[in-house]
Amino acid sequence: MAGKYYNLDSMLKPKSVAIIGASQSPEKVGHIIMQNYFNVGYSGYIYPVNVGGDDTILGRKAYKSVLDIKKPIDLAVIAIPAKFVPQALDECGKAKVKSVVIVSSGFSEVGDTALQEQIVSIAKKYGLPVLGPNCLGVMDLRSRVDTLFLPTFKIDKPSIGGVSFASQSGAVGSAVLDLISHENFGLSKFISYGNAAVIDEADILNYLAHDPDTKVIIFYIEGVKRGKEFIEVAKEATKLKPVIIIKGGITPAGTSAAHSHTASLAGSYAAYEAVFEQFGFIQAKSLDDMLYFAKIFEAQPLTTKKRVAIITNGGGVGVLAADSLYLNGLEMAELSEEAKKSLRKVMPPIVNMSMPMDMAGDADDKRFGAAIDVLSKDENVDALMIISLFQTPGADSRVAATIIKYGTENKKPIVVVSPGGNYAEVHNNMMESSGVPVYPSPEDAAKSLAALVKYSEYRERMGSLDAKDKNNKKSKRDNK
Amino acid sequence: MAGKYYNLDSMLKPKSVAIIGASQSPEKVGHIIMQNYFNVGYSGYIYPVNVGGDDTILGRKAYKSVLDIKKPIDLAVIAIPAKFVPQALDECGKAKVKSVVIVSSGFSEVGDTALQEQIVSIAKKYGLPVLGPNCLGVMDLRSRVDTLFLPTFKIDKPSIGGVSFASQSGAVGSAVLDLISHENFGLSKFISYGNAAVIDEADILNYLAHDPDTKVIIFYIEGVKRGKEFIEVAKEATKLKPVIIIKGGITPAGTSAAHSHTASLAGSYAAYEAVFEQFGFIQAKSLDDMLYFAKIFEAQPLTTKKRVAIITNGGGVGVLAADSLYLNGLEMAELSEEAKKSLRKVMPPIVNMSMPMDMAGDADDKRFGAAIDVLSKDENVDALMIISLFQTPGADSRVAATIIKYGTENKKPIVVVSPGGNYAEVHNNMMESSGVPVYPSPEDAAKSLAALVKYSEYRERMGSLDAKDKNNKKSKRDNK
Repeated sequence: MAGKYYNLDSMLKPKSVAIIGASQSPEKVGHIIMQNYFNVGYSGYIYPVNVGGDDTILGRKAYKSVLDIKKPIDLAVIAIPAKFVPQALDECGKAKVKSVVIVSSGFSEVGDTALQEQIVSIAKKYGLPVLGPNCLGVMDLRSRVDTLFLPTFKIDKPSIGGVSFASQSGAVGSAVLDLISHENFGLSKFISYGNAAVIDEADILNYLAHDPDTKVIIFYIEGVKRGKEFIEVAKEATKLKPVIIIKGGITPAGTSAAHSHTASLAGSYAAYEAVFEQFGFIQAKSLDDMLYFAKIFEAQPLTTKKRVAIITNGGGVGVLAADSLYLNGLEMAELSEEAKKSLRKVMPPIVNMSMPMDMAGDADDKRFGAAIDVLSKDENVDALMIISLFQTPGADSRVAATIIKYGTENKKPIVVVSPGGNYAEVHNNMMESSGVPVYPSPEDAAKSLAALVKYSEYRERMGSLDAKDKNNKKSKRDNK
Repeated sequence: MAGKYYNLDSMLKPKSVAIIGASQSPEKVGHIIMQNYFNVGYSGYIYPVNVGGDDTILGRKAYKSVLDIKKPIDLAVIAIPAKFVPQALDECGKAKVKSVVIVSSGFSEVGDTALQEQIVSIAKKYGLPVLGPNCLGVMDLRSRVDTLFLPTFKIDKPSIGGVSFASQSGAVGSAVLDLISHENFGLSKFISYGNAAVIDEADILNYLAHDPDTKVIIFYIEGVKRGKEFIEVAKEATKLKPVIIIKGGITPAGTSAAHSHTASLAGSYAAYEAVFEQFGFIQAKSLDDMLYFAKIFEAQPLTTKKRVAIITNGGGVGVLAADSLYLNGLEMAELSEEAKKSLRKVMPPIVNMSMPMDMAGDADDKRFGAAIDVLSKDENVDALMIISLFQTPGADSRVAATIIKYGTENKKPIVVVSPGGNYAEVHNNMMESSGVPVYPSPEDAAKSLAALVKYSEYRERMGSLDAKDKNNKKSKRDNK
């Protein structure tokens, strides 16, 4: 598909960056962006550009135009008022800049389609990949590129990992970025693409589908510029890796809101749902679900089988878990006689061998470890749901460590349910940072497991489910 | 209905407590419970009882039997091995103890129905209200009663408020208690009732329905002992205050799990759903929903009207919010011309007056305040959804303070959507502690608003929706 879709390497792994609109004034977007590059330890060249004519900006020699730089520029970030953008972009083209991010707003989203058309024709003239306008730009934790101009103390920085996130909306983007860190999974790339004047959904999906650092794609879209191309790319992408989509504007109310937001044609709910289903997208119906799904796909192996074993240190939550398996189309595992015999030896007499297995409130790391060990090996079990209530006397950091040991083996998908406050959270962070997905309720865990199974089935139907996907050590740890 | 249902005042507001099984050994349940009473500052009399014959336990004179105390005892907590419980209970009856909590396990939940039957007949002989066995007991933050024997450092203590929580399952109970504090709403009473041998669901619902400190009831049930009586009580209770139920064992898988958990007859999903619907219960389908619903009912006024105004400092989340209103049967408000005119004066030209109103990423407390003020007064608006993304440059503690100002007026229900990490959480805690419900996503907020409207409609149909319910200052602050 070469030639049809933009390659974004120069934008996401630039060796040199020009910041057009860089400034000595700390409140200016261009200043914040430039400071960001220093803060994250970007090791390439940075060239501040400002028509004002300062000699230096933030200690670096400043230029009046990119044309004055006379060195190769991989990425130019444009952060100046909308009306000056066309000229700056044209100069980027002349200077043979390889890619451009326009963060400025004031284009089609406020009704000025003429100004946006100008951008498009300049980009086409030079064959220039242009992101935006009206966007936050890009962030890549590995190459230390960061064009975001949001106050850094307000957003927790995610760790490096395998999830890439693309968002039409900058607001959804910044909130989700913050949530990714909160949920302790690892980010590969963040792409906020705003009005999608030049680079659109199809380009981004195509790039991320072939990006080796991206294991999971999450995508907030309101509309799609090139429907045919998007589907063409999607067919290939969803065979390679999970693509989780949340669609803004799926109802009449939302569609009209989306239209006034980015002036994109939002399309009908039914049409989108059918497309999602047909082409193997994983549809998230809320922000929560999007994050919950990303968490399991980043760290756990795929499986088309759905017999789930539940172990718990609290009976009632086990009951809710049994309900939630059923409601999500999963099955409760029936242990093999051999597994029951092994468990009988290590469990106290009070523990019943039927599922969900209630190991009682005093279950400690030894009891959890013995149970998980047996169930991991039982051929009647395809996936494990481990309910660890850290409010109980037996559950502590050793239980978390035991779960991590098995939860990162990637033989069978393992999900953990751990609702609670501060004490639980310390342990949830511990497990999640190691690549074990933790959920606040059995319902969330079951929904995520069901999404994993459904996507695995799609991959199997498409003939693209390899043994390595089912038993693949693809935790964050490998990506560091 | 006097006489038919136990009055639990002596259990929840006891002037004196005997702890049967109190001990000098710190690992014993009786020791932990007694220490708890000191820790929470209980001001009544405490009598340790232990057959072992220590002179003092934890600095208090110890007794061999409750019969030796010779003073009025409102509550006895029994924490001794199951086989000794009948004799201790009989002594409680003889000593005219007013109420008993049996935390010991080893009764019908492990198949020993005979032992449980013994408990029941002793309780009946003396007309003694007995909670349990196989439960955590009770907690009342106002009267400082706390029979829980869980490690206190593992569970965050909720603040005092209007939500009472009853749970068949101790595990669900302890996790939810921890979550209540995490979600920053206020607890009135916690009742963990285990096997429901004597005091059952109908007694508890009846007591909480008439408890003036309880504004909202949340209930985890697996089965119901006296169906007819439960419904009789429910009819009255749901006319007085919101009763949120989560039912464990709503599916074949869950039912069988519930049966082995507390040996209760779980009943069919369809039958329960019909009962919930008919008698005005608010059904929560997950632990998350139970907490989200409790939060809005504790702090916000009822309304049968459903035109919701959405304001946001991030366009994309506004789009998702519009979708979520529609999917939850709510309507988007259309502002009056007068409101639009007022807003036009205070909003920058970029802001569109249509809903959802995107106030842009630089919206600060002034812009939020002006918008909320106008919408609170607009007769076309019945409820407000305020999306405050704290990742944006304009949103800070002043925005939170402004939302609190209006969110605690209780003229119209107000819900806040604020997804994010640490910086957002500081502000979410600030708002929630003041009685403004905050949700991580628009979907959760819309679902909770829809539950509020649905329950309000039920109350109106039943003729029990007074003006005071619709505009009632019933925030936590009033209960302190």
